[in-house]
Amino acid sequence: MSAPRSIAILAGGVGGARFVRGVREHVRRSGDAERTRIRVVVNTGDDMWLAGLRITPDLDSIMYALAGVNDEQRGWGRVGETERVSAELAAWGVGWPWFTLGDLDIGAHIARTALLREGRTLTEVVDRLTARWPLGAELLPAADAEVETIVHARDPEAPDGIRAMHFQEWWTRHRATLPAVRFEQRGVANARPTDRALEAIGSSEVVLVAPSNPVVSIGTILGIPGMRDAVRATSAPVVGVSPVIAGTVVRGMADACLTAIGVATAADAVAVHYGARGAGGVLDGWLVDETDAASVPAVEEAGIAARAVPLWMRDPDTSARLAADALSLAASL
Amino acid sequence: MSAPRSIAILAGGVGGARFVRGVREHVRRSGDAERTRIRVVVNTGDDMWLAGLRITPDLDSIMYALAGVNDEQRGWGRVGETERVSAELAAWGVGWPWFTLGDLDIGAHIARTALLREGRTLTEVVDRLTARWPLGAELLPAADAEVETIVHARDPEAPDGIRAMHFQEWWTRHRATLPAVRFEQRGVANARPTDRALEAIGSSEVVLVAPSNPVVSIGTILGIPGMRDAVRATSAPVVGVSPVIAGTVVRGMADACLTAIGVATAADAVAVHYGARGAGGVLDGWLVDETDAASVPAVEEAGIAARAVPLWMRDPDTSARLAADALSLAASL
Repeated sequence: MSAPRSIAILAGGVGGARFVRGVREHVRRSGDAERTRIRVVVNTGDDMWLAGLRITPDLDSIMYALAGVNDEQRGWGRVGETERVSAELAAWGVGWPWFTLGDLDIGAHIARTALLREGRTLTEVVDRLTARWPLGAELLPAADAEVETIVHARDPEAPDGIRAMHFQEWWTRHRATLPAVRFEQRGVANARPTDRALEAIGSSEVVLVAPSNPVVSIGTILGIPGMRDAVRATSAPVVGVSPVIAGTVVRGMADACLTAIGVATAADAVAVHYGARGAGGVLDGWLVDETDAASVPAVEEAGIAARAVPLWMRDPDTSARLAADALSLAASL
Repeated sequence: MSAPRSIAILAGGVGGARFVRGVREHVRRSGDAERTRIRVVVNTGDDMWLAGLRITPDLDSIMYALAGVNDEQRGWGRVGETERVSAELAAWGVGWPWFTLGDLDIGAHIARTALLREGRTLTEVVDRLTARWPLGAELLPAADAEVETIVHARDPEAPDGIRAMHFQEWWTRHRATLPAVRFEQRGVANARPTDRALEAIGSSEVVLVAPSNPVVSIGTILGIPGMRDAVRATSAPVVGVSPVIAGTVVRGMADACLTAIGVATAADAVAVHYGARGAGGVLDGWLVDETDAASVPAVEEAGIAARAVPLWMRDPDTSARLAADALSLAASL
């Protein structure tokens, strides 16, 4: 099967990176690398200012993974990383001691911050940084405006029992163990999708939703005013991949996020949460893992075409096969 | 001889650092470390923005030297330095490839920049950073405002034969080999000495002028509107140390700067350039090296008390002895 000429992918960080690599691998194996354009609309809701530097975790995770310089063992950051600068920042009492920045990573943060401070948009900065390597895909921030995710979580030590904190504090410092009550996208009312993100969604032959966190990655992308409408309006089929396998999130702590918004950690529940395009949602198709085959009828019941296929992305082979399955489902719609 | 209760020192970077260490060493040996206050008014004219980070070379040189973490071999920066971040910045095409920032050093730059961006003054930031180590001296930026030194230098490749560049480009990239025509303190008209710098000069028992670059270090400090008047008005004796020994600058390339302003690279010429307080200048006393003893009469002729003593600061002993000689001359005035 040949690959489509253009593919748009909505994606968060690590899970998104693995899926995008699978799509790229599939396209390469199909012999279509030269003519197929892969555009990734990347979540910017985890972005933050730290020690005066602008950090964009999901964009970096995908860039590093596509460049092949990511740390596969650790699951995040650059391979061969050191932390000399971070140790200095701790000694100076600047930054978050629980959020370690690698030295190689800090190079990217300084470069990004310098370029942003010169007045470039995040989209322009990402273009410039990603030009360092032949990635085989274009990375497009979902929005150029700064929209930070604030978690309102239960904290017995807070005056009224609820404490608001940056997503990274909740996620990295507290390992999502403080029960989240609400996720706030601070500044989202003034944000809009970038023109290039809208164009990718509107003009691609297929739109894929990566198996990323449905709440704070995909949910954050779709929460930017105009983005959900763009996905609903595209003439391309929209196919998502479940981030839940057998009632467990494959990586990360998405279950804590799903619970907070009242969605069960189940492959069909996530699909129903996204909803069918025919019924006000964003999906036409949905892939669940073979072990979740029993959930296919519930998803189809919601108006979403569903298939049970192997979802585990263990290596280039399994990742490419998952991408092929997603594109195959899209082609059948 | 006991040390004065309070000493103010005007100083630039590396030469200044060595001299300040000598003063601290002398005070310690005199048993007066607890009761003698050493305040250093530090040149900020070499400061700059690079890759979005605020760099303060002279303040750092003195801080590192007093903390004992400076690289004595190389003559600048932190000992045990690495350059992983700089290599990344070069790969990203951000910053100046000829101006390498060490990883440990970058920690200070990030911390400083973050604190400045939070709205703190440079004086406050220096207070905070220098609190990391017991330095035995207070470092006071000459000014909080950003005043950058621009060098107008002859460059055959420039359209009109003259090119304006940041001091660091002239100094570090071109090793001061492009003949300087003029030094410009950009923004100096809107700058003023910090209150604490003025207080150090006005209230100390002795004011010393370190053997730093007379043009772009001491000259830049004195060029801040109000600073020269403060030195002229203090009731303390003002004693300087020649940065020139036997017609050669001890370190750095101050001769290129002196030549540009029409001052000979000679111990007496520098003293005459600073001038006697009795005749519109800033000096009461001046130390030249023993090898320059013949220049003592010319300095005294200009109304400045002069002594020929060993000026080479090779180690703590020779540095402390030079400090003692400077304080001894001050005490005799």
